[in-house]
Amino acid sequence: MDVRSMARQARAAQRQLELTSPEERNAALEAIARALEARAGQIVAANRADLAAAEEAGLPGPMIARLRLDEGKLAGVIRGVRAVAELPDPLAVEPQAWIRPNGLRIQRVRVPLGVVGIIYESRPGVTVDAAVLCLKAGNAVLLKGGKEAARSNAALGEAMAAGLQEVGLPVELAQVLPSTREAAQELMAARSLVDVLIPRGGAGLIRATVEQSQVPVIETGTGVCHVYVHRAADLAMAREIVLNAKCSNPAVCNAAETLLVDREVAAPFLAEAGPALLAAGVRLRACPEALAILQETARPDLAGAGPAAVEPATEEDWAAEYLDLCLAVKVVSGLDEALAHIARYGTGHSEAIVTGDAGAADRFLRSVDAAAVYHNASTRFTDGGEFGFGAEIGISTQKLHARGPMGLAELTTYKYVVLGNGQVR
Amino acid sequence: MDVRSMARQARAAQRQLELTSPEERNAALEAIARALEARAGQIVAANRADLAAAEEAGLPGPMIARLRLDEGKLAGVIRGVRAVAELPDPLAVEPQAWIRPNGLRIQRVRVPLGVVGIIYESRPGVTVDAAVLCLKAGNAVLLKGGKEAARSNAALGEAMAAGLQEVGLPVELAQVLPSTREAAQELMAARSLVDVLIPRGGAGLIRATVEQSQVPVIETGTGVCHVYVHRAADLAMAREIVLNAKCSNPAVCNAAETLLVDREVAAPFLAEAGPALLAAGVRLRACPEALAILQETARPDLAGAGPAAVEPATEEDWAAEYLDLCLAVKVVSGLDEALAHIARYGTGHSEAIVTGDAGAADRFLRSVDAAAVYHNASTRFTDGGEFGFGAEIGISTQKLHARGPMGLAELTTYKYVVLGNGQVR
Repeated sequence: MDVRSMARQARAAQRQLELTSPEERNAALEAIARALEARAGQIVAANRADLAAAEEAGLPGPMIARLRLDEGKLAGVIRGVRAVAELPDPLAVEPQAWIRPNGLRIQRVRVPLGVVGIIYESRPGVTVDAAVLCLKAGNAVLLKGGKEAARSNAALGEAMAAGLQEVGLPVELAQVLPSTREAAQELMAARSLVDVLIPRGGAGLIRATVEQSQVPVIETGTGVCHVYVHRAADLAMAREIVLNAKCSNPAVCNAAETLLVDREVAAPFLAEAGPALLAAGVRLRACPEALAILQETARPDLAGAGPAAVEPATEEDWAAEYLDLCLAVKVVSGLDEALAHIARYGTGHSEAIVTGDAGAADRFLRSVDAAAVYHNASTRFTDGGEFGFGAEIGISTQKLHARGPMGLAELTTYKYVVLGNGQVR
Repeated sequence: MDVRSMARQARAAQRQLELTSPEERNAALEAIARALEARAGQIVAANRADLAAAEEAGLPGPMIARLRLDEGKLAGVIRGVRAVAELPDPLAVEPQAWIRPNGLRIQRVRVPLGVVGIIYESRPGVTVDAAVLCLKAGNAVLLKGGKEAARSNAALGEAMAAGLQEVGLPVELAQVLPSTREAAQELMAARSLVDVLIPRGGAGLIRATVEQSQVPVIETGTGVCHVYVHRAADLAMAREIVLNAKCSNPAVCNAAETLLVDREVAAPFLAEAGPALLAAGVRLRACPEALAILQETARPDLAGAGPAAVEPATEEDWAAEYLDLCLAVKVVSGLDEALAHIARYGTGHSEAIVTGDAGAADRFLRSVDAAAVYHNASTRFTDGGEFGFGAEIGISTQKLHARGPMGLAELTTYKYVVLGNGQVR
């Protein structure tokens, strides 16, 4: 079936879901959890077939790691479904209401977005994670996953359909689309049939979606995040924050990619932080000033880490989202230069200042234009779970509709309900 | 200067505006109002030159009417500037704040969108209306008006620049772009330099912007709005609502384009409403059943109104946004058919039911997926002023970010400010 027809069916199914109670939607999630448990064997077997094909095709190791969905990971996915069921209902928001001088009663009422499209890559867990968040918020979802995960996604989709069927809801509420390029194109062209498209994956996928889609897109995830060590920083705290922001999970968008450090404290700070980063396996791309300090202070570690561990940064490094154990390092003259650097190279994701100076912190927090700005904390906290949202569908780096971690509330919109007794204008 | 450079300057200017107080922004608006008054002669003269060129080029009458900016209209624009200055500050919203178990303090803080692009057609008043709303909310604005209004817009832009200069703010906060197609293309390609694009004008302009823009767009204004007369309607009230929704300003997006009427009351209702609509100069495009009733009951009026006044509707009529004294009329079997018709042909703008049956009203209001749904009132109230927002920048027909009339609040977004004392993850 073509994607437009699937989208039309999703729309019709969504209207049915919208009229259900929160309890009915939670029961559907529980039924999906049970169906995933019941079909765990088939799902893991389908995933093994995907993995075998991926290995045969010589896909890169990190991609194969993301593709893997063994019993342990599937159990985690199922726990996630039940955790979403337990979250507060995002539609249960008291409407804003007011009365106009002409007697019209206007209410602003929370409603689902409608039909949500997700375009993603190899991780099959996204199929379920994204679907249950959409369903919980009253939306239908169209899932366009990667070709390499086609068997896994199909098996997961069948299980979700079985769960929906069990509670008497239409299976078209959560549809796994064909994993072809054509399906993605059709999805991006389905304006008015699909209300929003959320791409999740690498920068290439996101850019292509933004450029090609006629459906409104929420741009997610590109993060060239900075940690700025101000001259008034507690240097030990700064070192821990930089290490954490870079190393705790370098493959994710809220990891730091560039370290900025004030000239006044560059020598003592880099003398401590440099060797610590190198010891953690981080390669450094440094401006000339930082390079000189690092080469002087980190010589023994350098010898161990090999010649590529500290290298001069090029212009490309300032704009790079390494998503890897690599960090650009730049010495700056102070807050102004740090702000200008972030304004130029940042992607509006997460930016941190480390300082004991409240005035400098305040100026940084007010001036930096990003989804999340931090004072004395790691950029790694930009995350739905860490923010207390329970779960997230992605991290928005645009300013329309949602910014930063998007939880259930961001999968809803509103409409105006206007009650009159014959008013005309 | 090219649009990208202008956008970069707008971004830098916006950062400066963001740090001003509400009082400073209001003072800038007052200075703009004074500068418009001081240059009223030049502005009206520039508009007369535009009008002369438009008449010579043989532009259609309604376009010339929209283009006109005489002293009276300009005075209205200036009053509008001062009215916006008096509205509450949209950035003065108490931040949501919470503390996480690890001690992180998270605040969700209201901030301007940043750089807003407006693409519009002949009405030069939009240049000022849109600019002052953007400035009030702390944004810079790039204004791409129609070629036919180029002289008027340039004169208005110079006045706004003079006002900004007077209060020491950068003139790049409100820039009138060249009125060329290339400028529009460059604006739509300026992703990351421009935060949002709002097209205002006809369906063609809006469709082109949505299809071509890589900057996030808020779709505005296409309105195929329905009035549905339910069998339990007060027919006199229904007649007044239909007449008002169609005739009070047929050129705007919240005017009704289709009348749906329950079979049970079609004969008595159309026997009254048909002649009233025809007497008001409305042409009717009717389904066979409605046609029969109208031809029977409205014969004397028909004779006077000419043969084209009542015609059979074609499939195109159900999807038509006439923006004119023309109304499609369809008899339906009841609420279900009305809902299905609106789901199929509506554009998600404004939809009204007239009924005395609370259950039918409730089902209509919950089921119809539109920015504004009405019970016993005219669709013409979907308007920022009528909703009590003071002013509006447009009416969104999409679901992301803003829906329905967009006031000052919709020209803002938020960011997360996270305060720690060394937290790592």
